[in-house]
Amino acid sequence: MEGLAATLAALDYAAVAVFGATGALAAARRKHDIITFGFFAAVTGVGGGTLRDLLIDAPVFWVLKPSFLVACLAAALAVWVFGGGRGRGRLLLWLDALGMAGYSVVGALKAASLGVPPLAAIVMGVLTATFGGVLRDVLAQEPSVLLRRELYVTPALAGASTFAGLYALDVLPMAAAGAGFAVALSLRAGAILFG
Amino acid sequence: MEGLAATLAALDYAAVAVFGATGALAAARRKHDIITFGFFAAVTGVGGGTLRDLLIDAPVFWVLKPSFLVACLAAALAVWVFGGGRGRGRLLLWLDALGMAGYSVVGALKAASLGVPPLAAIVMGVLTATFGGVLRDVLAQEPSVLLRRELYVTPALAGASTFAGLYALDVLPMAAAGAGFAVALSLRAGAILFG
Amino acid sequence: MEGLAATLAALDYAAVAVFGATGALAAARRKHDIITFGFFAAVTGVGGGTLRDLLIDAPVFWVLKPSFLVACLAAALAVWVFGGGRGRGRLLLWLDALGMAGYSVVGALKAASLGVPPLAAIVMGVLTATFGGVLRDVLAQEPSVLLRRELYVTPALAGASTFAGLYALDVLPMAAAGAGFAVALSLRAGAILFG
Repeated sequence: MEGLAATLAALDYAAVAVFGATGALAAARRKHDIITFGFFAAVTGVGGGTLRDLLIDAPVFWVLKPSFLVACLAAALAVWVFGGGRGRGRLLLWLDALGMAGYSVVGALKAASLGVPPLAAIVMGVLTATFGGVLRDVLAQEPSVLLRRELYVTPALAGASTFAGLYALDVLPMAAAGAGFAVALSLRAGAILFG
Repeated sequence: MEGLAATLAALDYAAVAVFGATGALAAARRKHDIITFGFFAAVTGVGGGTLRDLLIDAPVFWVLKPSFLVACLAAALAVWVFGGGRGRGRLLLWLDALGMAGYSVVGALKAASLGVPPLAAIVMGVLTATFGGVLRDVLAQEPSVLLRRELYVTPALAGASTFAGLYALDVLPMAAAGAGFAVALSLRAGAILFG
Repeated sequence: MEGLAATLAALDYAAVAVFGATGALAAARRKHDIITFGFFAAVTGVGGGTLRDLLIDAPVFWVLKPSFLVACLAAALAVWVFGGGRGRGRLLLWLDALGMAGYSVVGALKAASLGVPPLAAIVMGVLTATFGGVLRDVLAQEPSVLLRRELYVTPALAGASTFAGLYALDVLPMAAAGAGFAVALSLRAGAILFG
């Protein structure tokens, strides 16, 4: 149970920070000030997990643990200092892929660990994985990543399902999470590269 | 009380499925894969009721009852197999009208049955009825049904108010629900045909 | 404690009504009917506070107190009767500034008074202040106020931080709220006038 909680927390921080960076990169397109960078980083970073927590009626994870917000602000600052430049669109796409893969697992994991039935836990993984990016694109009024021609929801679904299936079979949470993450990321990477 | 619960459940499934079909039809415009169809169907189908449940602090209806998600996926599959073709825009408009009418009643009914005051229960009916479609249009980045020139919010308000008024007068829930549904649907139908 | 509650309630009503008016003004651009005016007024007026209450797991403030909805509808009616005309865009901008400043304080105040840690309380102030306007612009499919070149998030952050800082220093809530409101409003006013 403690391994589970630690896995959950580490994945949560990582997914929040990389998603936060994509939010800041989206703001960067508009040449905003550092505060708007931070705002976009925070909304994108914690958006998916916030929806998950509201839906499963858990306390919203970042409200009582502001360190998640600090992770978003650090990501925003990193983008502010180093970011932009030519490869920005591409960097955004790949960070989004990493965050999506991490969140697909962490969303399903938290739901499953709170006793949500498997199908709903998988949906929670998909929503957590996709909602931050959707929110970022809606707020930045950019073409939604959801509507791109390559696969986006499918990798999230595959990752969450892989995790939920292995978890139901009593595989070690850490291993199930790793497998789910790998499935989601490789499918999305394939979609980006060959889609 | 049991008649009430049964009415609520049947209307919920019907509204979820027809709204889900409109979500899948919106995805169809973009020639997406089946998973994206299912995603749009689920978000549109359960979006309004999810907002309602969050607002009145009830457990989100589909999280512990995944059969609602199955209804959305079935609707998505039906659209995937039979859908598209010429009359699609028109079909989407009429299914949306049916779902809106059903949800205007079911939203108010659930809120009223949990002791929410009448005015807030009516607002809950309106939000439940309109939010799924709004979410669908925002996610699909289509012109919002809310901004069309014909009446959209008004029929939802009329349906929810009719139901809430009759319910407050101790009319049988089933009859009050039927009356509200008929009022909402006929107003919206008039708006589509003559608006 | 009672002074706090009274300050909170008065600011809440004022912020809800002026934000509600901006929602109705946004609907006015599209020449909608009075019901759609009311819908936009309600969503914009209570949107920010609703998000705050969901995030801090408090009962949503307007559900059990429909007088907030009445305030929105009154604002919508006032816009319907007197509104529009030439200066509308400008009026919307200034009312939005007033509502944003009020909500930046009231959002942080409610969160702080419920024991939310300072950093999260400040974020709550920022979200409450900006979310209503964001929602209005997304629903009306207008260019988002968030993406304008002048400062928008920064004044909200400054107002919420000023309030939270003084509040933590045990300054009288009413004085801390006044100072936060003044900081947010003057920064935003400067941004509108000179941005």
